[in-house]
Amino acid sequence: MGVLVLKFGGTSVATVPAIENVANKVAAEIKNGHKIAVVVSAMAGVTNQLVSYCSEINQIFNPQEYDTVVAAGEQITSGLLALALQKRGIGARSWLGWQVPIVTNDVHGKARIRSIDSPALKTSVMKGDVAVIAGFQGVTPEGRLTTLGRGGSDTSAVAVAAALRADRCDIYTDVQGVYTADPRIVNRARKLNKISYEEMLEMASVGAKVLQTRSVELAMKEKVPLQVLSSFEEALGSDLPGTLVVDEGDIVEQEVVSGVTHSRDEAKVTLRSLPDVPGVAARVFGPLADASINVDMIVQNLSPDSKKTDLTFTVPRADLPRTLEVLKAISKDLPGTQIESSADVAKISIIGIGMRSYVGVAQKMFKTLAEKGINIQVITTSEIKVSVLISEEYTELAVRSLHTAYGLDHES
Amino acid sequence: MGVLVLKFGGTSVATVPAIENVANKVAAEIKNGHKIAVVVSAMAGVTNQLVSYCSEINQIFNPQEYDTVVAAGEQITSGLLALALQKRGIGARSWLGWQVPIVTNDVHGKARIRSIDSPALKTSVMKGDVAVIAGFQGVTPEGRLTTLGRGGSDTSAVAVAAALRADRCDIYTDVQGVYTADPRIVNRARKLNKISYEEMLEMASVGAKVLQTRSVELAMKEKVPLQVLSSFEEALGSDLPGTLVVDEGDIVEQEVVSGVTHSRDEAKVTLRSLPDVPGVAARVFGPLADASINVDMIVQNLSPDSKKTDLTFTVPRADLPRTLEVLKAISKDLPGTQIESSADVAKISIIGIGMRSYVGVAQKMFKTLAEKGINIQVITTSEIKVSVLISEEYTELAVRSLHTAYGLDHES
Repeated sequence: MGVLVLKFGGTSVATVPAIENVANKVAAEIKNGHKIAVVVSAMAGVTNQLVSYCSEINQIFNPQEYDTVVAAGEQITSGLLALALQKRGIGARSWLGWQVPIVTNDVHGKARIRSIDSPALKTSVMKGDVAVIAGFQGVTPEGRLTTLGRGGSDTSAVAVAAALRADRCDIYTDVQGVYTADPRIVNRARKLNKISYEEMLEMASVGAKVLQTRSVELAMKEKVPLQVLSSFEEALGSDLPGTLVVDEGDIVEQEVVSGVTHSRDEAKVTLRSLPDVPGVAARVFGPLADASINVDMIVQNLSPDSKKTDLTFTVPRADLPRTLEVLKAISKDLPGTQIESSADVAKISIIGIGMRSYVGVAQKMFKTLAEKGINIQVITTSEIKVSVLISEEYTELAVRSLHTAYGLDHES
Repeated sequence: MGVLVLKFGGTSVATVPAIENVANKVAAEIKNGHKIAVVVSAMAGVTNQLVSYCSEINQIFNPQEYDTVVAAGEQITSGLLALALQKRGIGARSWLGWQVPIVTNDVHGKARIRSIDSPALKTSVMKGDVAVIAGFQGVTPEGRLTTLGRGGSDTSAVAVAAALRADRCDIYTDVQGVYTADPRIVNRARKLNKISYEEMLEMASVGAKVLQTRSVELAMKEKVPLQVLSSFEEALGSDLPGTLVVDEGDIVEQEVVSGVTHSRDEAKVTLRSLPDVPGVAARVFGPLADASINVDMIVQNLSPDSKKTDLTFTVPRADLPRTLEVLKAISKDLPGTQIESSADVAKISIIGIGMRSYVGVAQKMFKTLAEKGINIQVITTSEIKVSVLISEEYTELAVRSLHTAYGLDHES
């Protein structure tokens, strides 16, 4: 008995029968004695259709109007699920972002939630009515619609869970949980029963697309227990069939490495023969930051000519053309500098809070890749993560080898 | 130079190219020096799709959630048209019903506009920005979304025109204006250049589906000059290519009869051998009113047995099954009464403010129909309209004969 927030993604509400299935899950949780708020995404395909209308009109669209158009998707689902619940004799009503209100900043297209202060929502849920909340959307203090970026409904759900002080936030999706690696690549990948916020955060930021990064940050900050689970299985969230994302202290048996992820969304850029003088990095990265290009892995090497240096870094692959434009403009002031780039790279990461207590974890990664003849181009590390950039063609080989090397393969 | 409100129906915004066409018309009116508010419907087909989702879940749906779902259609169009205008370098923004706000009562599914008090909208339009307003939708004082019923965007447009004290409200649609009869039936039907509010009101209420009745009522009350015109022709609204709906005094050459309409949306019910006692009509029509069934034409005859009476009336054809249920329940208390009904009827009306000054107008109608062997089942009249109920199979013959008899056929 408690308050649960259930979030259903686009594939889970793709059709009317799928929405009926969701209504059945909600009904079952109510029968278990829980009070429920549901956060829904747009029916699968709807958001893409709306985005394509916008792009058809103008490639460079005004994000305020874009938000107005695409927010319609979640509005439709919230009304339909409320209808499906009412048919089952369950008190329910839809809540649009502006009705709650979910107040955000005005960075349209990727707004951040500022506050959810809604006595009306709380009263309604505590009374036993199901609140069906349109995910992904909010409203500025000035009353314009905003959206939270792809995957933003996860963040809506966690924020609602925090506002309602919910006992758990169940993220229903089309996978059964968080895996030790992408099961499409590693057929011996295992579903994790538990994972820490920190690990999930690193995973989300390096390619595991199961949760929006910000939703995990928020859950960690607000201490909202999260579960990732499948809406297409019989089991209810309360049976804990998925992966629980919890505090480190709640995980008893901790593996050294919890997962191996890969990302093909990277591109590598190398600036050769940069003048090796103070401030040269700022002259490169400043304009990239101004262009909202997110630089990730960075390494700097001495050139053979010791007054020159080589600088290598990665950017999102989609931003490579813009990155090269910015760099060409800068390079006029940096005589002799050559720009090289490659999009044929992949970032492979191992993640695990166990790394803090064990030595030789990174070394095992480098050795495993070397044995397979895979060359490491760039390395970055954090306290609980090691990432390497490799040639894209080795992606599957690298992930499978590391998965075996760290003892993650399931028996069978 | 002035303020214009332009309303575009679903077929006029059915696709992205159609929306671009609308943007071109708006741009041309701006070039003419006008300030513009646009009211848009949902893209053709979208509303039907959303309604069918609702019906698929539950035939008897909660109208609050229905409104939340279907209001998404106009939201999408308003954002897209704003984008198309911005692409042309025109300052524009979308306004959803709740953002204006267009405050309505809480009769969901067919709400009535209470007020549009929006200094922000006025300021924006007067500054020269185009306001792209989502039609068909409003918001209750409690903040729930409402819709205004089929054709409600016409009423949105007139209400916005009244609020902005606009010089004209142009209703762009898929026909070129208001015709003397349905051109699909009468190939010699003529487009009217002008028609009075009163005539338009009668036409709208007896089958000419070009404007929502309430929009004409509101235009008459607020003295908003309305124009019905086609969005698929080259001519702009300012060239007055359509039909102007105006005050009677603004029409110089008034015909005796302005149009002949027909409606197949009727069904006839006869109660035979009702006890002829005071209060019996109330005992029949009271329960029908309670069931929100709109009774239209009524005639009462003496039965051969003079203590009994026959009562005949029409109801909307879609309401016939419910009507018969209500009557069956009543008839238990009215022994000897038989219920007869027929859906194979049509209502034919002639409309014209000239009727007030000429005699013999109705007589010509009866004579014309008699000459063609068409039996009149029920007659009702108003100051500027005569309606008859006939067997449905004579619909085309009746309309064509009357169109010729009143001199409405165009030359050629």
